[in-house]
Amino acid sequence: MARLDQIDKKTVQKIEHLADTVLKSVKGGKSPFVEIPIRSLANVKFNPRRRLIELGGQKQKRYFFNVSMAKKFMQTFLVSEACKELIDSGKTTSIRDLYYMTKHGLGETKQNTFEEQEESDPIIEDLEVAIDSLREELHLFATGRGSMVGPMTIRDSGDTIDLRRMGSGGWSVPSIVEEHVVQFGKSEAKYVLLVEKDAVWRRFNEDRFWAREKCVIVTGQGQPPRGVRRLVQRLHTELRLPVYVLVDNDPWGFYIYSVMKQGSINLAYESMRMAVPDARFIGLSSFDKGKYKLPANVSIPMNDQDHSRARQMLAYPWFQNPKWQREIQEMVRSGQKFELEALSRRGISFITEEYLPRKLRDRDWLE
Amino acid sequence: MARLDQIDKKTVQKIEHLADTVLKSVKGGKSPFVEIPIRSLANVKFNPRRRLIELGGQKQKRYFFNVSMAKKFMQTFLVSEACKELIDSGKTTSIRDLYYMTKHGLGETKQNTFEEQEESDPIIEDLEVAIDSLREELHLFATGRGSMVGPMTIRDSGDTIDLRRMGSGGWSVPSIVEEHVVQFGKSEAKYVLLVEKDAVWRRFNEDRFWAREKCVIVTGQGQPPRGVRRLVQRLHTELRLPVYVLVDNDPWGFYIYSVMKQGSINLAYESMRMAVPDARFIGLSSFDKGKYKLPANVSIPMNDQDHSRARQMLAYPWFQNPKWQREIQEMVRSGQKFELEALSRRGISFITEEYLPRKLRDRDWLE
Repeated sequence: MARLDQIDKKTVQKIEHLADTVLKSVKGGKSPFVEIPIRSLANVKFNPRRRLIELGGQKQKRYFFNVSMAKKFMQTFLVSEACKELIDSGKTTSIRDLYYMTKHGLGETKQNTFEEQEESDPIIEDLEVAIDSLREELHLFATGRGSMVGPMTIRDSGDTIDLRRMGSGGWSVPSIVEEHVVQFGKSEAKYVLLVEKDAVWRRFNEDRFWAREKCVIVTGQGQPPRGVRRLVQRLHTELRLPVYVLVDNDPWGFYIYSVMKQGSINLAYESMRMAVPDARFIGLSSFDKGKYKLPANVSIPMNDQDHSRARQMLAYPWFQNPKWQREIQEMVRSGQKFELEALSRRGISFITEEYLPRKLRDRDWLE
Repeated sequence: MARLDQIDKKTVQKIEHLADTVLKSVKGGKSPFVEIPIRSLANVKFNPRRRLIELGGQKQKRYFFNVSMAKKFMQTFLVSEACKELIDSGKTTSIRDLYYMTKHGLGETKQNTFEEQEESDPIIEDLEVAIDSLREELHLFATGRGSMVGPMTIRDSGDTIDLRRMGSGGWSVPSIVEEHVVQFGKSEAKYVLLVEKDAVWRRFNEDRFWAREKCVIVTGQGQPPRGVRRLVQRLHTELRLPVYVLVDNDPWGFYIYSVMKQGSINLAYESMRMAVPDARFIGLSSFDKGKYKLPANVSIPMNDQDHSRARQMLAYPWFQNPKWQREIQEMVRSGQKFELEALSRRGISFITEEYLPRKLRDRDWLE
């Protein structure tokens, strides 16, 4: 619990520092402002050395004595205050809840502090970047989604949970998995396998792949939510576990891998704590159709959107590696995509008994 | 494990019986057919005595020697065979997977047994009703979604899981929760609280409402998936726990309650094992805005779709109870809906510390 206090104290200090700066300006007779890093595309760039999508250095000053900025200025402090209250009371909540918590009428007017959640969400992101704290450190959570099992013990909010004995359901990965909530205990895991699809994860769990292979298996049910990404990142950096990502062979699957690997443009300011630049793409590769003798009728023709997404990917700085170019070009050339479930055509447990073991043995992955 | 064999044996027997009937027709020189209850709206009705939406008695004969029926006839047996294989091998899989497993080319033609999953899904439903087996008994699962904690111990696939010690994440409810997979152990639970929203469930978990109130809390993240509904139904029928449903005050929330209570039109053939006619609607009621002093600005105006859904509901046989009529009419009259999160306007833990305890104490629910 010491750790809880430490992180929380630091976050509260940052919020207070933000407020102090403003107060000092007022006392010094200056126009108070807060400085907020700009989150637009123009201020986002790929850092090739760190292999992360990052926010650049551009900042915007938000003044109180400026008609167009005054409301946002006020909103920033409303949200800051609400987060401080959350931290002080040791509670967490959703961004929807925060919207309602901070929604008030303004004096005698018909105006409210926030009319819609679309107004409060960007203010939360502003605050995150302004004080460099993850949303989770502000005690705000997103929807929890995803399941995990594996040869390791964890602690979650004081409860010891043996991920070796979680039945068919697994442990439901929460949204906030920071170190003061989730701690890692005894582990025999050698790597992490992140599976795009829930149904495929269930196949790996039912076949007890994780026990045989000594790995943690986790699914985010599509694009993994923040909790899953952050947890995978912590497993990688703290326990030094390699991360393998298993997705459909389509542009969306590649994108899921890409976000896990170097972050996303929208959340560029969080890449450092959410992304794993060393994450390995273990499949499905466009070349697997041939290697694993899948019949032609399990492929699905790519549509226009798939083609344009694939072409965009060819241009991404982080896919410039010749092996990735070859991979994506093969998808474009064939005009076909295929799903993880297509491997079942070769047998229901083909994916756990033959496909993945061979992939790992042959070191047949991309980075 | 005895139970596993028993249910599985029974399901296999039913599949074999279906096949035998057909074989006998062939041997007897008759045109082989399978008889399948019709799943169209015309054959669905509300049974007021059992308070369930049920399938009527109409059946359709599907003949092999009929050009328009032959393909479906063949598909029915392909799916039956695949399910029998699954059961025999003790494995489960998704309906997407089953589609790929049973997709073959047909001889020299360019046709496949199934072109799209949209063809195989209805065949699965046909088989379910034809042999009166739940999809889960055919070893097919849907997407798992939803979390659960509470003062009870369960067994899932041989693992003992203490739902009192599941941290912030909870146990991830699997899709197949039949008795041979999930068994109930020691329990101090007095009731089940089914919460529509994941974020609100997290509030109840963080505040340890379940420990204080001795109840199981479960969320299905929106419309609860099959696994959650079936599990709640089992908790109700086997452990005799009352079920309370907590949803948004809008037609969609009422619909979620309605499906938990008497099943849905689409899945009428499964109501008996998925629905809880005694389920209680604990909130949000349209009258709660006044009772719990919520400010006007947390309400959301209903749109046209909301209005037409609400008017439909007024006509449903299962909402004819005068109290329900009054409830829905109040929503229509006010033209306003509001979300569970709106209660946070009264304080972050208002919902767990004041709202729900008072509701339960005052027996302020609808049935």
